[in-house]
Amino acid sequence: MKRIAVLTSGGDAPGMNAAIRAVVEQGAHHGIEVVGVNYGFKGLVEGNFRELTVAYCQDKIRRGGTFLYSARFPEFREKENQLKAIEQMKAKGIEALVAIGGDGTFTGALQLQKHGYPIIGIPGTIDNDIPGTEYTIGFDSAVNNALDEIDKISDTASSHNRTFVVEVMGRHAGDIAVWAGVATGADAIAIPEADFDMKDIVRRVHSGRANGKDHSMIILAEGVMGVDEFIHGFQKVDPGMSIRGITLAHVQRGGSPSARDRVFATLMGARAVDCLINGQAGLFMGVKGEQFATFDIIETLEKKSHAVRQDLYQLNQDLTNKAN
Amino acid sequence: MKRIAVLTSGGDAPGMNAAIRAVVEQGAHHGIEVVGVNYGFKGLVEGNFRELTVAYCQDKIRRGGTFLYSARFPEFREKENQLKAIEQMKAKGIEALVAIGGDGTFTGALQLQKHGYPIIGIPGTIDNDIPGTEYTIGFDSAVNNALDEIDKISDTASSHNRTFVVEVMGRHAGDIAVWAGVATGADAIAIPEADFDMKDIVRRVHSGRANGKDHSMIILAEGVMGVDEFIHGFQKVDPGMSIRGITLAHVQRGGSPSARDRVFATLMGARAVDCLINGQAGLFMGVKGEQFATFDIIETLEKKSHAVRQDLYQLNQDLTNKAN
Amino acid sequence: MKRIAVLTSGGDAPGMNAAIRAVVEQGAHHGIEVVGVNYGFKGLVEGNFRELTVAYCQDKIRRGGTFLYSARFPEFREKENQLKAIEQMKAKGIEALVAIGGDGTFTGALQLQKHGYPIIGIPGTIDNDIPGTEYTIGFDSAVNNALDEIDKISDTASSHNRTFVVEVMGRHAGDIAVWAGVATGADAIAIPEADFDMKDIVRRVHSGRANGKDHSMIILAEGVMGVDEFIHGFQKVDPGMSIRGITLAHVQRGGSPSARDRVFATLMGARAVDCLINGQAGLFMGVKGEQFATFDIIETLEKKSHAVRQDLYQLNQDLTNKAN
Amino acid sequence: MKRIAVLTSGGDAPGMNAAIRAVVEQGAHHGIEVVGVNYGFKGLVEGNFRELTVAYCQDKIRRGGTFLYSARFPEFREKENQLKAIEQMKAKGIEALVAIGGDGTFTGALQLQKHGYPIIGIPGTIDNDIPGTEYTIGFDSAVNNALDEIDKISDTASSHNRTFVVEVMGRHAGDIAVWAGVATGADAIAIPEADFDMKDIVRRVHSGRANGKDHSMIILAEGVMGVDEFIHGFQKVDPGMSIRGITLAHVQRGGSPSARDRVFATLMGARAVDCLINGQAGLFMGVKGEQFATFDIIETLEKKSHAVRQDLYQLNQDLTNKAN
Repeated sequence: MKRIAVLTSGGDAPGMNAAIRAVVEQGAHHGIEVVGVNYGFKGLVEGNFRELTVAYCQDKIRRGGTFLYSARFPEFREKENQLKAIEQMKAKGIEALVAIGGDGTFTGALQLQKHGYPIIGIPGTIDNDIPGTEYTIGFDSAVNNALDEIDKISDTASSHNRTFVVEVMGRHAGDIAVWAGVATGADAIAIPEADFDMKDIVRRVHSGRANGKDHSMIILAEGVMGVDEFIHGFQKVDPGMSIRGITLAHVQRGGSPSARDRVFATLMGARAVDCLINGQAGLFMGVKGEQFATFDIIETLEKKSHAVRQDLYQLNQDLTNKAN
Repeated sequence: MKRIAVLTSGGDAPGMNAAIRAVVEQGAHHGIEVVGVNYGFKGLVEGNFRELTVAYCQDKIRRGGTFLYSARFPEFREKENQLKAIEQMKAKGIEALVAIGGDGTFTGALQLQKHGYPIIGIPGTIDNDIPGTEYTIGFDSAVNNALDEIDKISDTASSHNRTFVVEVMGRHAGDIAVWAGVATGADAIAIPEADFDMKDIVRRVHSGRANGKDHSMIILAEGVMGVDEFIHGFQKVDPGMSIRGITLAHVQRGGSPSARDRVFATLMGARAVDCLINGQAGLFMGVKGEQFATFDIIETLEKKSHAVRQDLYQLNQDLTNKAN
Repeated sequence: MKRIAVLTSGGDAPGMNAAIRAVVEQGAHHGIEVVGVNYGFKGLVEGNFRELTVAYCQDKIRRGGTFLYSARFPEFREKENQLKAIEQMKAKGIEALVAIGGDGTFTGALQLQKHGYPIIGIPGTIDNDIPGTEYTIGFDSAVNNALDEIDKISDTASSHNRTFVVEVMGRHAGDIAVWAGVATGADAIAIPEADFDMKDIVRRVHSGRANGKDHSMIILAEGVMGVDEFIHGFQKVDPGMSIRGITLAHVQRGGSPSARDRVFATLMGARAVDCLINGQAGLFMGVKGEQFATFDIIETLEKKSHAVRQDLYQLNQDLTNKAN
Repeated sequence: MKRIAVLTSGGDAPGMNAAIRAVVEQGAHHGIEVVGVNYGFKGLVEGNFRELTVAYCQDKIRRGGTFLYSARFPEFREKENQLKAIEQMKAKGIEALVAIGGDGTFTGALQLQKHGYPIIGIPGTIDNDIPGTEYTIGFDSAVNNALDEIDKISDTASSHNRTFVVEVMGRHAGDIAVWAGVATGADAIAIPEADFDMKDIVRRVHSGRANGKDHSMIILAEGVMGVDEFIHGFQKVDPGMSIRGITLAHVQRGGSPSARDRVFATLMGARAVDCLINGQAGLFMGVKGEQFATFDIIETLEKKSHAVRQDLYQLNQDLTNKAN
C-alpha cells in the first residue's frame, strides 16, 4: 500500500483533527502517503484532494473542528456518485479510504466497500451514538464543554436562587445529557431513552430545595423536546416556580479536544492505517471495555443499536430522590 | 467607625465576591467589622445579616456569582422600606453601607444617602454601562466568556463554511459586543449606539468571503434586536446565504472572574472602606484613565451617561471594509 | 445503618469533593447521616468530625482539592491509634467508614477492617496507580491539566523552534506521562515502565525535525528522573541541540475536576453507600472495562499490581518512528 | 504606500498574532500588501519573506505564540546587517517595517529609522516593561495564565494547609507579580521595585493564619530571586513552617490570548498601518489612560522608564496587614 485518503463528514467533532493527524503520522511510520479530501464525500466525487504532511499536521492534534472541512452531500446516495468517487481515488493512485464521522458517514463509506473499494471508518461525533463502540471522538470534549457552561450558569442560578433548564445536544441519544447531568449534580435529567414525567421532575426540584439547595438545574437532551416546550410543561405543573431556559447549542461542538478525545482519536487513526496494511477493510475502529476494538461496519450498522449508560442515568435518579 | 455592611444587588457579575472579600479584608486591616447582607435590599429591610470573616472569604476572590445572593426588590422604591433598612442597620450598630451592583443598585443606595445614611457604591455589572467610570466589575470576565464561546463556534463554523450571528448581553449598551467582536475578528458588529444597516452587514460578510475567509461571524448586541429577528432581516437582503443564530445568554455571566475583574474589584472594595473611614460617602468607586477614581453618586447618575468605545467599534468597521 | 463517616487522605485529587458529595447525597437517599472527618486519619483519631448536609455539599462537586482536608499521619500505623479511631467513631454512633485516597489511604483503612470495623475504599489519586481498578479519581483531570500546560508550552516552543522536556507527576507510574504524551503528540515519552534509552529519544527528536516539525516536546514521568538530570543526559548525546526543561508540579493537581472524574467519583461515592447498606465491607470501589466494579481491598493490594497502558505507550513509539 | 513588512522578535507573547493579523487586515482595507518576515531580524537580513493574506490570517487572532517565528540575533547590532536588512526590503519593494516585540526589538528597529528607513514599533511582551505605554501585548494573558495556575495550586495548598511561594515571570519588572498577587489574594508579593524584607513576609503569612486562613500563597517576581533562594531565606526566619516552591515558567507565555490582548493588539496593529500611510514613522504604538497613544521610539526608549503600579502593590500590602 502506497497511498491512502482520509476525509471527515457530517457534523464536526473535537478530535477529528487528531484522528487525521494520526493517520498521517502512522502513514509516515509505514511509508504510506496520505491524501486529504476536502469537504467529505462531496470533495471525493469532485476530486478535491490535498497532500498532507507530518509538518502540516503537527499542531492539528489540539485544534477543534475539522481542517479538512465537512459538507452535506445527500447526492452520495446515488450509485453514480459513489463510482465517480472511486474513480477519482484510483486516478490518483489512492488505494483505500479512511472516513471519519457519524452513522451517516459510515453509511456513505460502506457503499464504497460494497463496490469493492476498501474503506475504514472512524467514529467521530459528539453524540456518542454509534452502535458497537462505547466511544466516539468528540463526546468527551462535548460533555466537558457542556459542563463548563452549566457550571457558569450555576453561578448565576445560585446568586438568584433560580431554576434553569439547560438543553444539550445529542440528537436521538441522551449520552451528553446523562454525563453532563451527573457531572454537574443536576436535580433532574430528561433523556429520550427514559420515560418523561414532568411531575416527577418538578418533585425532584422541590425536594432539592427542601434539602436546602440554593438553586436547581435540569438537563434536557434535545431528543426529548425543546426548552420552550419544557418550560411550558413545567409551569403547567408548577405555575409558582420561575424557570429559565438555555440552549447550549454549538458551543458544545468546538474548542480544543480533551485528552481522552485526543488519545482515542490518535489510537483509532493509527490503527486504521495498520488495518489497511494488514489487508483488513470494511471495518470501523472503536473502543470496547476501554480497549481498542474493531467492528464490521455493514453488520454492526444493520444489526446493532446504541444504548445510553442506564446505570449513570439511574445513579442520578437515586441521588436526587431523597428519603426526606 | 466600628462596623459596616456590604450587599450585592441586581444581576450578578463575576468579581462581586472579590469586592466583598476586599471590603472584609480592608475592614480587618482597619479594625472594622464587616456584616454581610443576604439578598440585597430585600435582606436589608428584613435584617437578613451575617458575620463575614477573613477566613470565610479567603477563597471567595475566585468564585463567580455573589455568595451574598441578590434579589429583585422593587418595593425598595418606597420610602418606608428605605427607612426600615436604615433602622435595621442602626439596630445592629452598622454605621455605613457598601452597595455593589449596577445603576438600579446605585439608585436604591442613594436614597439612603439622601436620608442621611452614609453609603458607598461599587459598580458591578457585566454591561459596563455605569456613567462616569470606564470600568465595571464583571465586564472583562463577560467579554472573555463570550470570547471563549465565539471561538468554539468558529471551530464549527469554519468546518462547515458557515455564517453565524451570535447575540451577546449588555442590555442597552454595546460594550460586550464591541470588545468581543473586535477580539474575535468578527465580520460585523451590531450595537445600539450605531445606526443599523443590514445591507452593509451583508456586504461585509460577502467581502470577507471574497477575501478567502472560510466562515463568517456577526456579533449582535441584545440591545439591537433578537437573533431570530436578525436572521429574518438578513435573509430578506440575502436569501441565498444560510445563517445560524446563537444566544450566549447566562454563560457570559458566570465563571471564575478574570484577573482584571479581580484586581479592580479588590481595589474598589478596599477604597470603599478607606473612603468611609475618611468620612466620605455618597460616592461610588470607579476607574478613569485606568486609575482609581471616585464619583459623586447622585450627580453622576443624574447628569452623565455611559458611552461605548466608538474608537473600537470604528476599528472593526475599518478592518472589515476591504479596498477590494 | 444510621450514620457513616467519610474522610480523604494522602495527596489531594480533583474529584475527591465530588465523591464526598455523592456519599452525602446517597446517604440522604437512604436516610443515612454522613459525618465528615477533617484531616484524614489524624482527624479520625482526634475525633475531628463535622456534620455534612446536602445543602453544604451542593457546589462541592465542581471544586478541586478536598474540603475535608488531608494530612500526613504515619502514626496511624500504630495499632493503638487504629483502635482509638474506631472508638471515636463508635462513640459518635458511626457504623462504617468510607476512605477516599491512594494506596497509603487504603493500607490505613484496611487495618480498621482487620479489626472488624467496616470500611469501604474509594480510589482517589491523580497517579492512577491503584491495582485492580483501571481508573482513579483525579487522573483524568490531571492529564487534562498537563495537556493545557503542554499546549501552552508548545506555543512558545513553536515560536522559537525549541525543544522542551516537560516533567509530569505520577510517582512510580507513567500513566500521566503516557496519556499526556499521546494527547499532545509528543516526540518522545519516558516512563518508569519502559527501558530508558537517551539515544533513541534524541533520534526521535531529530526525526521529527527532519519531517519538518517546528518544535519538539518530550514528556518525562517523574518516576524516571528529574528534568535537570534528563537535560544533562540529553546534552551528552547531542551537545548541539538546545533543550529547556519544565516541571509542571502541583498545577496538575488542582482545578475543577473534569466530567469523567466527577461522574466516576459520583458513581463510586454512591455505590460505597449502597455496599455498606448491603452489608458489604472490606471492598474498594473501582472501574473495570469502563463499568463499575468492586475489589477486595486486602487481597487486591497484596496480590495485584497496577500496569500502565502499554498499548498507548507503544502507539506513541510507532507514531514517532518514521519510515524516513 | 504599496507594500510593507511585519516581523516579531524577542520573547513571544500571546496577542502577537492578533497584531500581525490586524496589520494585514488594515493593509487590505487601504489596499496595501503586507509581507511577513520569518524569524525576526535574522529573517530580515536573510530576506526570509512570505506573503500574508487575509484568508491565511483569519484564525490567527486567537492563536498563542507567533506564527512568524522569533529568533535571537545579536548580530543585528552590526551596522552592516542593518543596511543589508534595508536592502532586502527595498529589493522587494517594501516601503516600511512594523516590528512587534519588546525593548530589544525596538532597539533593533530604531537603528533602521536612524538610517532613514521608516519603522513603527508595537509593544509585545508579557513583561509590560516598555516605557511610556501602560500596556504591552501579552501582559493580560500572562497574568490570567498565572492566575489559573495559582488558583490550581491554591486547591492543593488548601487541602493540606500548605504555604507556597510561586515564582512568576517579568524579567526586571514586577508587573505580573503585582497583578497576579492582588488577583489571587496573595499573603505577600515580592517585586524588584520594592524593598525586600523576609521578616515582614513571614509576619504576613502568620497573620493570615492567625486570621483563620487555611493556606498561604506568596507571589515572587523572578527579578527578585529564585524560588530556592527564597525558601532558604524563609526557613532561616521561620524554620518551623514548611514551604513549597513552584516556578510557573513558560506556561505563562502561551495559550490563546485574552480579550484585552486581542483588542489592543488589533488596535495597535491597525493604527501602525494608518501611521505609515499618514507619513508617520519612528513611533511606537501604545496605550495611555486606556486610550490609544503614540510615542517617539528613540526619545522614549532613551529618556523614560517603566514603572510598576505602586498603588496595586500597596493595596496588597494593606490588605494583608491586619489590625489584629
